[in-house]
Amino acid sequence: MEIYDFLIIGAGCAGASGAMYASRLNLKTVMVAEMPGGLITTTHLVENWPGIKSISGPDLASSILDHASSFGVALKNETVVDIETVALTEEQEKAGQKPGFVVRTGSGHYLAKTILFSTGSHHRKLGLPTELQFENRGVSYCALCDAAFFRDKTVAVVGSGDSAAKEALLLAEHSSKVYVISRTHLHPEPVNLERVKANPKIELLSGVEVAEIIGDDRVRQVKLSDGKTLDLEGIFIAIGLLPQSELAEKIGVKLNDKREIMVNRKAETNLPGVFAAGDVCDSAFKQAITGSAEAVTASYWAFEYLQKNEVVLR
Amino acid sequence: MEIYDFLIIGAGCAGASGAMYASRLNLKTVMVAEMPGGLITTTHLVENWPGIKSISGPDLASSILDHASSFGVALKNETVVDIETVALTEEQEKAGQKPGFVVRTGSGHYLAKTILFSTGSHHRKLGLPTELQFENRGVSYCALCDAAFFRDKTVAVVGSGDSAAKEALLLAEHSSKVYVISRTHLHPEPVNLERVKANPKIELLSGVEVAEIIGDDRVRQVKLSDGKTLDLEGIFIAIGLLPQSELAEKIGVKLNDKREIMVNRKAETNLPGVFAAGDVCDSAFKQAITGSAEAVTASYWAFEYLQKNEVVLR
Repeated sequence: MEIYDFLIIGAGCAGASGAMYASRLNLKTVMVAEMPGGLITTTHLVENWPGIKSISGPDLASSILDHASSFGVALKNETVVDIETVALTEEQEKAGQKPGFVVRTGSGHYLAKTILFSTGSHHRKLGLPTELQFENRGVSYCALCDAAFFRDKTVAVVGSGDSAAKEALLLAEHSSKVYVISRTHLHPEPVNLERVKANPKIELLSGVEVAEIIGDDRVRQVKLSDGKTLDLEGIFIAIGLLPQSELAEKIGVKLNDKREIMVNRKAETNLPGVFAAGDVCDSAFKQAITGSAEAVTASYWAFEYLQKNEVVLR
Repeated sequence: MEIYDFLIIGAGCAGASGAMYASRLNLKTVMVAEMPGGLITTTHLVENWPGIKSISGPDLASSILDHASSFGVALKNETVVDIETVALTEEQEKAGQKPGFVVRTGSGHYLAKTILFSTGSHHRKLGLPTELQFENRGVSYCALCDAAFFRDKTVAVVGSGDSAAKEALLLAEHSSKVYVISRTHLHPEPVNLERVKANPKIELLSGVEVAEIIGDDRVRQVKLSDGKTLDLEGIFIAIGLLPQSELAEKIGVKLNDKREIMVNRKAETNLPGVFAAGDVCDSAFKQAITGSAEAVTASYWAFEYLQKNEVVLR
């Protein structure tokens, strides 16, 4: 069974940055991730990673993963299915020793002295009855992945934030018409709002919700909360992200009411030896660069923790 | 007189990253800096900026400055000599309005609705009587700047941290012999400790201090606290950094006992509309990437602050 000083769950911009630093700190480090690169790999264009004017999401993620692997970090493309805290004897506890962790994946298990949750988030769903039925038949959560299927067709984006605006802009490069359906009103980054407003293919529909997704073998129409219907072929849902914090919760890591992992400025959770960084944690402003820095910070405090504590692994 | 939404003092990795983001958020932004690029421009090699395996300090700083200027951020290469908070009338205070700031440089002055202190830090001095006298005559604080003057000569580095190790490694590329004089013992990043130990030109002297710097028209010798002397031509001092927080203190920003600006996770100081990021603030682990993320975070909360508050400028 492999033993690691620092086991990172997730290998997006945050996880990979933490891995690179941990390895420079001589921690034996592994990333275990079902989706190496993370959610940014579904982003068309990143223009706000400091120092790089424009890069695709997949390329940015790759460059950080390469950087980590150049220091010898292992990457296991496996899904973590369970995690357990090692039980301490009374004596070990009295001696001030700390528990390690057993991390199980579909293919095996690992022992880890410290853990970084950089598990990111997944797309929130509308919760409409036919939403699941039409997934990949007109319902999508990723314009970058699916925009090309809607060349010269009419589509809609549902959402109010910056992601919704960016999805709409990307879709407008392919589709003939893009509605943006916002429950309140569209309020993305100002630079993206200007781009949306300047784009003749994009039409904003504010103060309405999608009431029903209608189709046959695929999406044909949506009905709005004001009774109107729109004929279209695709509907892209960009109404936010849900933190992937279930595994952390299972071992007793504290979450806030948005189910984000609560961390302090050292990226420490409430549990000794357990850290969190990136989209899964409770930073109010989440960007690739901030998640990356949080994971770097976590790697340093994991290093300090291991200098000062004896960790029991079995 | 020019009015800015977001005035950044300092234009290192932190300041320039914050400027880039602020500009994307449509804030009218300016960086005022006496040393554009900041202290990282004195660093030979940066190997830990996520996604870039190796880059010179000056090149990393330039890439972020270029990124900021591509969004139209102004850079004023001026020294800020004074800063004042605009005085509110009783009525304005009652109405919940917030004060702006007047920032004076050698060449003029600017009005700013919010301020980011990313003023960085400068090198701590030993405080020995002849230290100043021999500055640039053998006493240096920057191996990258001065190493080439000591080709095939004997030099010493004073310090115990990662900077001391990196200075020694760089000097060993030029000089014939490099002493590292540490009051306790050398404890850099493990990867750099290995490199230092593997380098036959480097000799570690632990548990001693420099008692005296001796020379004629330039440095010739140092005397150690244990009475021994070393014949050498150069002494590089790497004993830490002092935050440049005087201007912030002047307007009432709270500092900790290390004179670092105290910030929360939003990069807010105790004063409304005043933010800090990078080496000048009280994050315990300071890296280019963490400073950059702090400034990005500051730019977002400055944007939010300006959405919600009316700022008085005169």
